[in-house]
Amino acid sequence: MDYLHKVVADIKSLKIQGAENVAKAAILAWSKSPDKKKAAKMLESARPTEPMLRNSIKYLSRYNDPDALLKMIKEADEKIAKYGSNLIPDNSTVYTHCHSSTAVSVMVKAKEEGKHFKVNLTETRPSFQGRITALALAKHGIDVTMHVDSAAMHALKDADLMLIGADVITSYGSAINKIGSGLFAKIAHELNIPVYIAATTMKFDPVTAYGKKEKIEERNSKEVWNIRNKHIHIFNEVFEEIEADHITAFITEFGVIKAEAVMDELEKRYPWMFE
Amino acid sequence: MDYLHKVVADIKSLKIQGAENVAKAAILAWSKSPDKKKAAKMLESARPTEPMLRNSIKYLSRYNDPDALLKMIKEADEKIAKYGSNLIPDNSTVYTHCHSSTAVSVMVKAKEEGKHFKVNLTETRPSFQGRITALALAKHGIDVTMHVDSAAMHALKDADLMLIGADVITSYGSAINKIGSGLFAKIAHELNIPVYIAATTMKFDPVTAYGKKEKIEERNSKEVWNIRNKHIHIFNEVFEEIEADHITAFITEFGVIKAEAVMDELEKRYPWMFE
Amino acid sequence: MDYLHKVVADIKSLKIQGAENVAKAAILAWSKSPDKKKAAKMLESARPTEPMLRNSIKYLSRYNDPDALLKMIKEADEKIAKYGSNLIPDNSTVYTHCHSSTAVSVMVKAKEEGKHFKVNLTETRPSFQGRITALALAKHGIDVTMHVDSAAMHALKDADLMLIGADVITSYGSAINKIGSGLFAKIAHELNIPVYIAATTMKFDPVTAYGKKEKIEERNSKEVWNIRNKHIHIFNEVFEEIEADHITAFITEFGVIKAEAVMDELEKRYPWMFE
Amino acid sequence: MDYLHKVVADIKSLKIQGAENVAKAAILAWSKSPDKKKAAKMLESARPTEPMLRNSIKYLSRYNDPDALLKMIKEADEKIAKYGSNLIPDNSTVYTHCHSSTAVSVMVKAKEEGKHFKVNLTETRPSFQGRITALALAKHGIDVTMHVDSAAMHALKDADLMLIGADVITSYGSAINKIGSGLFAKIAHELNIPVYIAATTMKFDPVTAYGKKEKIEERNSKEVWNIRNKHIHIFNEVFEEIEADHITAFITEFGVIKAEAVMDELEKRYPWMFE
Amino acid sequence: MDYLHKVVADIKSLKIQGAENVAKAAILAWSKSPDKKKAAKMLESARPTEPMLRNSIKYLSRYNDPDALLKMIKEADEKIAKYGSNLIPDNSTVYTHCHSSTAVSVMVKAKEEGKHFKVNLTETRPSFQGRITALALAKHGIDVTMHVDSAAMHALKDADLMLIGADVITSYGSAINKIGSGLFAKIAHELNIPVYIAATTMKFDPVTAYGKKEKIEERNSKEVWNIRNKHIHIFNEVFEEIEADHITAFITEFGVIKAEAVMDELEKRYPWMFE
Amino acid sequence: MDYLHKVVADIKSLKIQGAENVAKAAILAWSKSPDKKKAAKMLESARPTEPMLRNSIKYLSRYNDPDALLKMIKEADEKIAKYGSNLIPDNSTVYTHCHSSTAVSVMVKAKEEGKHFKVNLTETRPSFQGRITALALAKHGIDVTMHVDSAAMHALKDADLMLIGADVITSYGSAINKIGSGLFAKIAHELNIPVYIAATTMKFDPVTAYGKKEKIEERNSKEVWNIRNKHIHIFNEVFEEIEADHITAFITEFGVIKAEAVMDELEKRYPWMFE
Repeated sequence: MDYLHKVVADIKSLKIQGAENVAKAAILAWSKSPDKKKAAKMLESARPTEPMLRNSIKYLSRYNDPDALLKMIKEADEKIAKYGSNLIPDNSTVYTHCHSSTAVSVMVKAKEEGKHFKVNLTETRPSFQGRITALALAKHGIDVTMHVDSAAMHALKDADLMLIGADVITSYGSAINKIGSGLFAKIAHELNIPVYIAATTMKFDPVTAYGKKEKIEERNSKEVWNIRNKHIHIFNEVFEEIEADHITAFITEFGVIKAEAVMDELEKRYPWMFE
Repeated sequence: MDYLHKVVADIKSLKIQGAENVAKAAILAWSKSPDKKKAAKMLESARPTEPMLRNSIKYLSRYNDPDALLKMIKEADEKIAKYGSNLIPDNSTVYTHCHSSTAVSVMVKAKEEGKHFKVNLTETRPSFQGRITALALAKHGIDVTMHVDSAAMHALKDADLMLIGADVITSYGSAINKIGSGLFAKIAHELNIPVYIAATTMKFDPVTAYGKKEKIEERNSKEVWNIRNKHIHIFNEVFEEIEADHITAFITEFGVIKAEAVMDELEKRYPWMFE
Repeated sequence: MDYLHKVVADIKSLKIQGAENVAKAAILAWSKSPDKKKAAKMLESARPTEPMLRNSIKYLSRYNDPDALLKMIKEADEKIAKYGSNLIPDNSTVYTHCHSSTAVSVMVKAKEEGKHFKVNLTETRPSFQGRITALALAKHGIDVTMHVDSAAMHALKDADLMLIGADVITSYGSAINKIGSGLFAKIAHELNIPVYIAATTMKFDPVTAYGKKEKIEERNSKEVWNIRNKHIHIFNEVFEEIEADHITAFITEFGVIKAEAVMDELEKRYPWMFE
Repeated sequence: MDYLHKVVADIKSLKIQGAENVAKAAILAWSKSPDKKKAAKMLESARPTEPMLRNSIKYLSRYNDPDALLKMIKEADEKIAKYGSNLIPDNSTVYTHCHSSTAVSVMVKAKEEGKHFKVNLTETRPSFQGRITALALAKHGIDVTMHVDSAAMHALKDADLMLIGADVITSYGSAINKIGSGLFAKIAHELNIPVYIAATTMKFDPVTAYGKKEKIEERNSKEVWNIRNKHIHIFNEVFEEIEADHITAFITEFGVIKAEAVMDELEKRYPWMFE
Repeated sequence: MDYLHKVVADIKSLKIQGAENVAKAAILAWSKSPDKKKAAKMLESARPTEPMLRNSIKYLSRYNDPDALLKMIKEADEKIAKYGSNLIPDNSTVYTHCHSSTAVSVMVKAKEEGKHFKVNLTETRPSFQGRITALALAKHGIDVTMHVDSAAMHALKDADLMLIGADVITSYGSAINKIGSGLFAKIAHELNIPVYIAATTMKFDPVTAYGKKEKIEERNSKEVWNIRNKHIHIFNEVFEEIEADHITAFITEFGVIKAEAVMDELEKRYPWMFE
Repeated sequence: MDYLHKVVADIKSLKIQGAENVAKAAILAWSKSPDKKKAAKMLESARPTEPMLRNSIKYLSRYNDPDALLKMIKEADEKIAKYGSNLIPDNSTVYTHCHSSTAVSVMVKAKEEGKHFKVNLTETRPSFQGRITALALAKHGIDVTMHVDSAAMHALKDADLMLIGADVITSYGSAINKIGSGLFAKIAHELNIPVYIAATTMKFDPVTAYGKKEKIEERNSKEVWNIRNKHIHIFNEVFEEIEADHITAFITEFGVIKAEAVMDELEKRYPWMFE
């Protein structure tokens, strides 16, 4: 199996996961492939619900410059970490859910800048990605308290802000992220706790402007419960939408902006995304 | 080890669990014990947070009639199942959380009466009691759909009612039940979905009238995550309060009544509880 | 056709309508009937959803004293009018919906006592009972402004209170009244406008304590639209539930009390209702 | 009476109604008129509250190209139908209110694409435009259920989305549409049901940026109730505002976008509108 | 001036203030007066809006036993302090507003029992009674943080509970207390912070059951601003209502109970209040 | 002390206050200073939390044209007054808080245009700036009613709109204004009362796009209470944030626009602000 096929297979099997990891692997695979058109086609269809993957392929097909793209992504990450860390007050509590390398980098940056804060998080069934976040933060000396997902009210009660990542930013200002994100952002909003979403605008999904919605991935029911019983069904949609009016701001490489401004900035700065 | 000590040990080690099972085991142990005072004392302290246990011991100490008490509990259960089943409309969806033998008996009764309905439930981490409920309902041919706890919005979205049990009923109309119950009842209330709590009034906790609150049990953190890391802490409180104004009605042996009426009925009918 | 059959027929055909009018006609018919048991049975089944009718028959069957019952109803009406009129501030605006002779009597009483106020009301499709209310109030010199039902936000905006009647009071503190009542009470509650329900406790429905719900009457679809088209369906449920926590107080013959207190007062004062 | 005067008269008498029909009739009348300035003036004042009419006249006065304008409107309609139909999930329920040819075209497009869905609607007193919508949808084989306006909670309860049109889009993201639209969108928002407004950006009202609000048209009171009584007044404002934060997205020819983005897109694409 | 006249004058001039102080002074004056009927009449009208004053006079007129009454009040105070102190968790923050000797005694009791907690309070313009509370608590070594009234969101943000007193308890479960209490309880309720009202049931106002509302006292405008300008008006109502559904529980001598249970307990225990 | 030092001292000591007055004084001081760089530096640091001051210095450093800047500010003020006055309906009630010369100019403009309206305002402790507003409006013959801050529910109850100024506009659509503004805007939003913020876009704070938040000024505690007691602390933060979704629209020199559009307009029209 050549490199391209291996990367496509790894993306399909979830061996490579996380919107940004998937995009980076695809960029590398594309750059090493002799047949760019074929590579673009295969990679785009490796994971249907990741706009950052598709935007990356679109950029490469247009500009043929993987180095520029990787640099753009790296710089975006650094800016988001910097801007986001400014939003974490000293002596505060951050609530987060699931695992987002972008959200983690914001918290690590804040730690590096000498801020004191602790993190409440929820374990994120069925795959327990909250544990990956807990270990990543603990490695940097950040104190975390893990909660089962249904204890989210307690995890939020003392929080000064909610900070999560996202897989998709839509044209009407909402985001799509791991199951639970919509519910917990709704509660945070009701409790007057600001909700920030740290995400590069590369996750903007241009087809949402045409009313198209990414199909929410429904994963294998065994992840939830390995049971066989004709009366027992399993719901395992792994993402859900976070309403625009529950999001205080997006932390992007273009600044800390309201959801509605993302598309506008993109049209000015990444016109290729709309071609 | 004599029978009394064995029951006390089994209650302490959670081998016997569920408010009603604990109470029934205690009644039996008490009735078999030669030294009633000692039995009462030992049993009361076997599980500090179960008012049904303490109310049972109080009744026995006062009336010395375990058969009457067991009959009273059995009749209460039957009435609750009957009244509650009337609240499940035909062709409806019920949402439930955790495992309550009382709530299950309501749904089984409705099924027996020929009602068609399905049940959405949440798995109830860390101990997955939702699975016990799922299997109990499936056994009676009721179709259930299991959700991870963070997917509660989806489990509730199409529900016509929320039906859960409770361990404690307070003097000011709230209830205490497994973690998540307060959060999901709040959401149900916001979505205009009625929230019913099926519970015998034997679960009324008279000391709440004196402002005393049962300490919420914090169980072993390993139930949540078996990890050792000085930066990682675990929150494992297993119960939470459901606010009175998120509860549409209590389904009790005295009828389907507003929380505030429970204490009033008890004063009239179970005066011994307040002695 | 004898008098009993005529009254039963008139109740069935809606020639006699309004919970209190129906009850009074039934009391008269019962008192004139030689065969009390047969009369009771026929009258009870003339309109299945009116607890005041059934409570009246129950009272008659128990006490055989129609004069006492009519006196009780009359006195209840007078007390409700008196207590309710105290709740209408001078120089205020009352919002009402549909037609309730009890609610009208409250407003007429307030007018008689010299209070200045105006009334905003909604027409109450499909049968336009709001017009009956408008004419009744205008006859007493009270200024009213009629709104289409969908303009309820405007009718409520300047209102100091919402005042309606009810057909049913439940054991868990809610009420059932004409379609729209639940929606408009919800909005009033959100806008911090108190919601009063003027209704004799004779409208308490004891079977709600057993979880039984009156079936909401679905009337002839032609009342809404006289159309025949296989793709066009008509929803014509004419009542809806008003949630307990959207009701500030019930104005009853026992006082201005919280919904939860109604059953308690009834058990003390009308024990026959629970026999 | 010449053609121009006839069209002006028909617009004034409501013989021609609906924002888009009015605009199209005006474009035709203008194109046929020898005196363009006079035609513009007469047409603009034929209906004071329709920005699409005024924007059309402004375009014609600037570019003198009715064919281009009609083509632009036709293409906008087609795009809105296409984008909007993507937002209707298969096996879903749509709630709509009043009659909007744009909203109808979205639903018809979804039907044509093979989607299965049904429509709940409210009759829209006083003029029953909901019936026009019902007949239009039924003609295309779409099943609809008609409700009186006050039964909106029931029409919304099972809906997956709310889809309506609008007469006006303001500079601060709200919309103006038939009475009831603001109330029902508020309820939908509370029940977590997305609210979409299908409307060409030609309905944007530039003067709202100067704080000017279209006067809400108050029509003849006889439409509501043909009564003469000095104590009875009639409120017959036929439009109301829908708050920006109750609107999930506008479905426009520029995409499915947040209200706030509409003005921005217009400044870029229709600069003539702000001249 | 004899003692009775002096007490009446002092009550009228606010030299004696606070519901309980007023009641105690009146009991003493009544007991010393030779003409009980005259004393009752004069004292009742000394301050029209204090039910505890009126209930005390009613009790004296019925039982002629001031010592029993004073003992009853003292015991009620002690019970409320005891029950209420149980509701203050260790290491918590209490939010309070205005000055209530009952609420202060609850906090002092909790301090005496060794609880660690701090108190956020609002100054309570125009008369700055918050300062009296601050000094009373500081004297007992309790740390307090004073806020201007408009900073209530900040005073509430970290609070674990809100604890205030009341002048009036109504028959439908609301309370009347110093201006601001209704607003801040509403906010606390929205932020999921329990709201407790510490008040003897002697403050129950029986006439509220007849729909009568105490007129809210409007004090001298100079308390707010000593200005003379024909265009400047001053609003100085000093009390406002706290809605029943914003009150978690009343802390009374009969226990920590839901508002709706207060009247029921009173009917059972203080029947003289309803004579 | 030279003029520059005097202005800097007056700004620091609050002798010069109000965002616009500070900016104008700084512009004058800068224009009179021989050493522009030094003046810029000193003035910028005279008040750390005023973006209008810093934006003005930035403009002067870039364009060296104080007259153009003052003209720009004057024209902005006039446009805001004009646009804003259009938003005040005839025969209405406006609620305002604190003192904003911009908000006052909107109301004065509306009065000059012959509109009839009255103003409810809150006194704005600790510095009673509400009184400055009251006197300024009274001088123009506008009737005002002053309330203590905790009576805000009463001041808002009959209001048709809330109109305040702001010191800061953020990149994510919120504003920062005097303490109480966030709380009262939240309540207005809940009561369906539109909230307008009148402010020149010169108050936009570009660093908020980098996640930086102005430190909220904590003034001398003696402004609140001149007390010395080791147990008594004073909270005197004088500003608070108003959430974007509680703001109906900003009234700016670019029009009445949604918060999210402000940054977009600024990027187009004031590019120097982002250099």
